[in-house]
Parts: sequence; structure tokens; C-alpha cells
Amino acid sequence: MAGGEKKKSGGGGKKKEVKKETGLGLSFTKDENFGEWYSEVVVNGEMIEYYDISGCYILRPWAMSIWENMQTFFDAEIKKMKVKNCYFPLFVSPGVLQKEKDHIEGFAPEVAWVTKSGESDLEVPIAIRPTSETVMYPYYSKWIRRHRDLPLKLNQWCNVDGFCTANLMLDCRSREFLWQEGHTAFATKEEADTEVLQILELYRHIYEEFLAIPVTKGRKSELEKFAGGLYTTSVGAFIPNTGRGIQGATSHCLGQNFAKMFESMVWQNSWAYSTRTIGVMVMVHGDNKGLVLPPKVSALQVIVIPVPYKDADTQGIFDACAATVVTLSDAGIRAEADLRENYSPGWKYSNWEMKGVPLRIEIGPRDLANNQVRAVRRDNGEKTDISRVFLVEQVKGMLDKIQQNLFDVAKQKRDACIEVVKTWDEFVKALGQKKLILAPWCDEEEVEKDVKARTRGEMGAAKSLCTPFEQPELPDGTKCFASGKPAKKWTYWGRSY
Amino acid sequence: MAGGEKKKSGGGGKKKEVKKETGLGLSFTKDENFGEWYSEVVVNGEMIEYYDISGCYILRPWAMSIWENMQTFFDAEIKKMKVKNCYFPLFVSPGVLQKEKDHIEGFAPEVAWVTKSGESDLEVPIAIRPTSETVMYPYYSKWIRRHRDLPLKLNQWCNVDGFCTANLMLDCRSREFLWQEGHTAFATKEEADTEVLQILELYRHIYEEFLAIPVTKGRKSELEKFAGGLYTTSVGAFIPNTGRGIQGATSHCLGQNFAKMFESMVWQNSWAYSTRTIGVMVMVHGDNKGLVLPPKVSALQVIVIPVPYKDADTQGIFDACAATVVTLSDAGIRAEADLRENYSPGWKYSNWEMKGVPLRIEIGPRDLANNQVRAVRRDNGEKTDISRVFLVEQVKGMLDKIQQNLFDVAKQKRDACIEVVKTWDEFVKALGQKKLILAPWCDEEEVEKDVKARTRGEMGAAKSLCTPFEQPELPDGTKCFASGKPAKKWTYWGRSY
Repeated sequence: MAGGEKKKSGGGGKKKEVKKETGLGLSFTKDENFGEWYSEVVVNGEMIEYYDISGCYILRPWAMSIWENMQTFFDAEIKKMKVKNCYFPLFVSPGVLQKEKDHIEGFAPEVAWVTKSGESDLEVPIAIRPTSETVMYPYYSKWIRRHRDLPLKLNQWCNVDGFCTANLMLDCRSREFLWQEGHTAFATKEEADTEVLQILELYRHIYEEFLAIPVTKGRKSELEKFAGGLYTTSVGAFIPNTGRGIQGATSHCLGQNFAKMFESMVWQNSWAYSTRTIGVMVMVHGDNKGLVLPPKVSALQVIVIPVPYKDADTQGIFDACAATVVTLSDAGIRAEADLRENYSPGWKYSNWEMKGVPLRIEIGPRDLANNQVRAVRRDNGEKTDISRVFLVEQVKGMLDKIQQNLFDVAKQKRDACIEVVKTWDEFVKALGQKKLILAPWCDEEEVEKDVKARTRGEMGAAKSLCTPFEQPELPDGTKCFASGKPAKKWTYWGRSY
Repeated sequence: MAGGEKKKSGGGGKKKEVKKETGLGLSFTKDENFGEWYSEVVVNGEMIEYYDISGCYILRPWAMSIWENMQTFFDAEIKKMKVKNCYFPLFVSPGVLQKEKDHIEGFAPEVAWVTKSGESDLEVPIAIRPTSETVMYPYYSKWIRRHRDLPLKLNQWCNVDGFCTANLMLDCRSREFLWQEGHTAFATKEEADTEVLQILELYRHIYEEFLAIPVTKGRKSELEKFAGGLYTTSVGAFIPNTGRGIQGATSHCLGQNFAKMFESMVWQNSWAYSTRTIGVMVMVHGDNKGLVLPPKVSALQVIVIPVPYKDADTQGIFDACAATVVTLSDAGIRAEADLRENYSPGWKYSNWEMKGVPLRIEIGPRDLANNQVRAVRRDNGEKTDISRVFLVEQVKGMLDKIQQNLFDVAKQKRDACIEVVKTWDEFVKALGQKKLILAPWCDEEEVEKDVKARTRGEMGAAKSLCTPFEQPELPDGTKCFASGKPAKKWTYWGRSY
């Protein structure tokens, strides 16, 4: 079948022929050429389309629906927490950006400046928002006049420009992406601390329950925290193929630093997740046949394909396909039939495998005769004949299993990459093996800088990824892997996106 | 009460005192100084906040929730029509913008150009999207390779820059606003024609059923249609206070003009509505106490306010308020109680009247004793005592009545402005009286240009608003009001936003 698993030896040539013939299939494998595989799979899977401006991509409906499924969940959850949506302008005046010096240093090299409107030069150039802390907070001090105006909890769903190094196109620098950014203000640190973790739990939920990706909840080091904030928590994922960690979403406590700047004494948080989530999902689950989508986020959960044979009751098969879709849809399962007549069943299989639909249902003459359908799982290729009498419960059960299996397999692969090290030599060796390294650390900023300096190279330097909230035991006398000083905590280290 | 109706004679001074004392109330009346009244009501009603870049405004949660309520409806409806959401980049390369000459002429003077990234000048400046026809359609020709790839129906919810003359801040030029833009491609003109009207009906629904604003469905003249398109339909509203028509939303058939440019022969439509809808709503329903929100779109439908007296059972009253909110919320009514202790009931009344909440429920000692609540309608001030036994059904009934009454009153006011004219003299007189003018017209572009030229003045020229689909009888021999040539149709004329 086009797009099928490619053997290591000599498969390349054959593969390209198949691709040419059908317009399907991938020219690269995930193991051999991860970067090219990724670029190809997001385009062939119809998630994105390249655009004529560098760093910009079109989010096609197949990706957008995943974003919308996550958004529906997250938006409802934050509304339960009394967070309200708002919309701040895209344009930012230069003075506002420069308000917080540490903060802006991270963004300035990337900021896009509008200097002309039509044919006229602007008197003062205006920036396109990178992130909205300094944009929003002057208004917070205006709106928060009395203690009783607290808490103030706002969120916006919007596009942001030029600050993210890793988005849907993970290997490239993406100029613009979609995200939500929550910005909240409280009277006390306790309230702020509590919210930071509530939001982080929602992010874990999105990754683990929706995208079937195992993540680690933890705290970022001083060097890696959000510039200008008090502390940063994150959910971190890991890509075994490249041996790189990736920050999945962050929930920051900003403390009173920004508030002071704008002359109020509130405690502030900000938190965000972006379309990068979709990129991580593609990297973790995709295979050599294309995308593999978790049922919970996939626009389509079941694709029904008729498999007519010569002399068979073609109309009966097509009708059974249509009836199957109705039955599943009525039960709340997102199902469609691919009844196009100009494509062979085999072509359709490859097409929907490329797009990663979790479950394929085939109906041929034998199925029709036996009042059954054949269900084929995208995640592991398993085939099951299902009586049409038990269609809904069986399909529901299979979708649940697929969701769980994707998570289990991803977790197994991730866990297999974790290497506990205690010395610098072990650390260097594990880094060379693309491991997710858990090491005892003295928690000193200078030591992290030193680790970065000593591991600088073609692949990029290693850095701390996060200090997991769930800490293994740290026996007395344990020493920092890098400095030899007394260790204070276990921290994940590695290269990252 | 602060913010109450102001008498014409000498009310101004007293009013400002009240405003100063309570921080509530409006300094301007809708009838006397519409523009100032509008600017004040959207800010004091917490819909928008001014921003430090000209033409940009912050959409606060009170406005955003209205946008979200309309979005939930519209998004579900277009999904039923198999329209899929996508997201195209904010940035546009200059070549793309210049593809369609007629089309771009309308936008070019307004386009914002990014010329710098960080400290570096860009080799080629990039534009911020005004509207996405020329941005999207090159990709449409890529995606539509065969007849069976049709229809292609995409929509995006996004921010747009600098092309709208009238948005939430209706009197100013708004740089950035939120909208949806649908872009569809069909094999036949019939399919495209059908969709144009289906979408227009959804826009009518939003205006009439959600925003309680009467609109006229019709077709724009050749001069006023979307540049580069085949024909434009619109829903048009009218603002009696200023005597100006306002285009509420448009559904365009683009014909094959854009398709030819990108070398395909499909029939295309595009359609959009924006946050302007909210501005129209404020203008139509607002009064001298502030905003008046239709129950269907208001974030809050009922505000419950305790009215404690000395020696009364204050705790009992507060408990009754909280219980009332629970009862209403459980029945799906959006209700909250204002239990803040530092504000008087009178202050709270004014506050929530300013914000336009459709129904206020007051609970005082007498209400508590009688197991009743007092309901006060925002639209007409009507007070009703409701037994708590029948709370839900009575409140539901009142909200329905408020929604209907807002529409009826708006329609009455709008209809009272319609003037049927047959001659140029009648036309000029009606225009001076700020009427919505219905006149027989020869439908010639030169004649419309002539009407514009002859009415040019301080208030702006008159133009055709739309030719309503519902045409009154046009007796044989009827002459055009402007040219004296045989009339072909009845068309609405007037000044517009």
C-alpha cells in the first residue's frame, strides 16, 4: 500500500515511485530523516500549507479543527474559574514595549515594526504584539482601583508575532502563531500560586487526555524562567526521535514586578499555550504512513470506505456505508464516508492513513452479507470484524482504546529515554545518546550557565528543562552532577526546541 | 438617580454633579450630542477602553461576550453548511495585494506595512492583511485540482487591519477589528448564488433575532458593490439619531473574476461580519442611562440586587439573592447577584443600568416577607412583583418580552424615518430631514455619481444604500427621482457610515 512502512534497505526508490503514482506516501521516514519527514507529513496530511512569506504557514481545516477541539475544552474550563475573554489590539507603541527591560530583551530582536500606512510614513513606528504583559498591565492599574476590584482575570485568544522559536513548524522559526494568553491579578500571593497550578493542570489535561502526550509538570530554573517574572511552571514533553525536550505550555507567577512598574501592588500571573501543541502531537504520534491523530482531537474519528468488487451489490455497499455514518453520527461519533467513485479503496486507505483518522471502517460484499463491518485501527493496524448490531458500543470502545494506547506507547517511548545520571561523565554520555536526563543539581544559575557553555556544539547546548514537582528521593550527601556541590533537587536536563 | 433621563432645560449642570459624585452617569444625551454620547456610553458601559494608538481600542469582556454569543450561533450554522475554519497568516506579500487592481484600490491607502524586524530592515516590506481575497485564492487554485475538489468552503475568525471606516467606534476610523471572513468556491453560479442568500439570512438572523435590530436585505449598486466582485448583497441598518444608513454585513458573489486571475474557472463568494455589529447595537438601543443590551447577547441577563434596610433581616435578604441566582442559573438564565457591601442599592442600579443588563431583580424586606422579588426592565423601566414560586417562568417570559420589545421599538423608529420620494426636490428635502429615502431609480452608475456630486457637503454625500429584495410595486411610467429616465427599481438612499 502506498505510504506503508518502508524497509531500511533499498525501500527509498520504490517508495518514491509509489508516491509519484498515487500522489500519496512520504519520501522520508521518521527514523532516518526526522526533519524532512515532519515537513512532509504536516503538508501531505493537510495540516498546513507553505506560504509565500518566510516563517508563515496556513493552518488548514485539518489542523484548525484540532485547535478548536482543545479550545472548546480550555475556554469552558477557564470560564468556570471566572476568567473572562477580552481582546487587546495587535499594535503596540514602542514606549510600552520598553517598559520592562529584562522582559523586552528576549523579544526585541524579533519584533515586527510597522512604519508605513499606505504611502505615508508613520510619525512613530508601531510594533506587532509579541506577548501582551506590558501592553495590558497599564490598563490593569486603571481598572483595579480598589481592593474589591480584585481578582481581575482576563484571557485572549489571538495571533502573536515573532517570538516563538518552535511552533507548528517545529524546526523552523515561526513568525506568527495562534495562542491564548491569560493575564490575572490577585490581592494575595496565595491566590496567584493556586491559580498557577490550576492552569498548569489544565495544560496537563490538554496534553495527556486530549493529545495523548505524556508531560512532566515542573518548575523552570531561574535562567529559563519567563523574563521579568517571579517563577515559571511548565508542562514539558520529549521527542525521542531527536532527543529534545519541548516546553508544552507555561503558567507563570509574575509576582509584583510588573505591578510595581504600573504602580499597583497586586500579584500577577500569565499563562499560555499555542498551536505548538499540534506540532508536538504530530512529532510524537506520526509514523511513516503519515499523521496519527488521537480520537479526542481529530476532526474525524471514523472514516467509512466502501470496498466494492466486480458483480457485487455496489449500491448495497454504498448504502451500508451511508447508514453506518448515520448510526455513528447519531451516537455523537465524528464519522464520514468516502464515497468518491474515482478513487480505489486502496488509494482511499492511504489517503486517510496519511491524514491520521483514528479508525477506518471498510464495508465489502462479505461484510454486507454478514451484516458486519471491518474496523482497522490507525495506531497499530489491528483489524476487527464488528457486527452492525453492536456497532456503536464497539466503535466507542475502540476509540477509547486507541486514545489510551497512543498515550501508553508515547509514555513507554519517553520513559525509555529517561536516564538518571549522577556525574558529569554520565551526563555527557547520556546527552550523546539523546536522553532525557534526570540529574541531582545544586540549583545555581552559574552552574547552569557553565553546563551550557561546556555542551555548546553543533546540536545546541544542553540546558535545564524543568525540576519535576514529583521528586525522587534525594539522599543526604548527594552531589550536583555538574558542580560537585551539595545537590538540592532532581532536575531534567537535555537539548530542547 | 444618577444617569437618569436628562430634561432639555438646564439639566446639564445637575447631571455633571451627579456624575462626579457617583462616578456613574453620562455627561451627554443621545438626542443632543449623539457622537459624544456614543463615545461615553461604550467606555462607561465597559465595552471598550481607549488605547494609546490612534484607531485601536481594547474590547473588554462586556463587549467580547456579545461577540462570542453571536460567534457561537454563526459558527455552528456555517458548520452545518459544511464550511470549515482555517487560519491564514496576518502578513501579506506586496505582490499578492496588487494582483487585483480594482480590488486593491479601495484598500491601498490604508494598508499597514511592516518594514523592520527588530533592528533590521526587511528586504521586501510586508503588509498586514486588510481582507484576504487575494491572499487566499492562489492557494485555492492549488487545492482545487479537479472538479471533485469542489465545493471548497473555508472561513476564518480573525483580526483585520485598517480598512473599515466604521467599526465599534463608529464615528472614528478603526484600524483593527475582529471579524469572520468566509471564502467559498463552487462549480456553478447557481450554487454560489444560493449560498450568498443563505449567508445573508444568517446575518439577518444575527441582527434581528440576536441584536434586535431591524435590517433590510438587498443588493448594492454597481458603484457600492465589493471592488472586483460580481454583485454584493447586504443587510442594512439605519441610525435614526444621525439619519445614516449602515451596512451591517455583506455577502458577495465574486463571480469568476478572482478565479480567472488565479487560473481556475470556479465561482466564488466571500462574506463577512465584524465587531461593527456591536457598535450598531449600542447606537440603536442605548439611552441616556447607558447601554441597553438584548437578552440574547448579553453576558448577564439578570442582575440581582439586595436592598437591605436598617433593622431588616440583612442576612436573609442576601441569602434570598444568592438563592435566586442559583434558581435562575439552573434554568439556564445568565444571572448574578451584586452583593458588594460598600455600594448602595441606588449606586448599583445605576451601575447595571449603565452596563445595560436587561432585567434587574431587587430583593428588600417586604419582598422577603412576601416571598417575592421585584423585577425592573432595563428597556422601559417597568416594575413587576414576582412570586418566587413562579420565578423562572416569569423571568423567562420577561426576557422574551424585552427582546421582542427592543426589536419592535427599533423597527417603529426606523420605519418612522422611511420617506418615499419621487422627485429630486422631495429627495433633497427628505435628506435634510435625515430620512431613510426610498426612491425609484434608473439604476445607472453615472446617475448615482451625479447624486453624490450634487449632495456633497459638510454632512457627506448621499448614496444608494441598497435595493431591497422586497420591492414595492413600480407602476409603468415611473421615473427616476434623479435622472427622470424610466425607473427600474426602488432603492434606498441616504447618508451612511
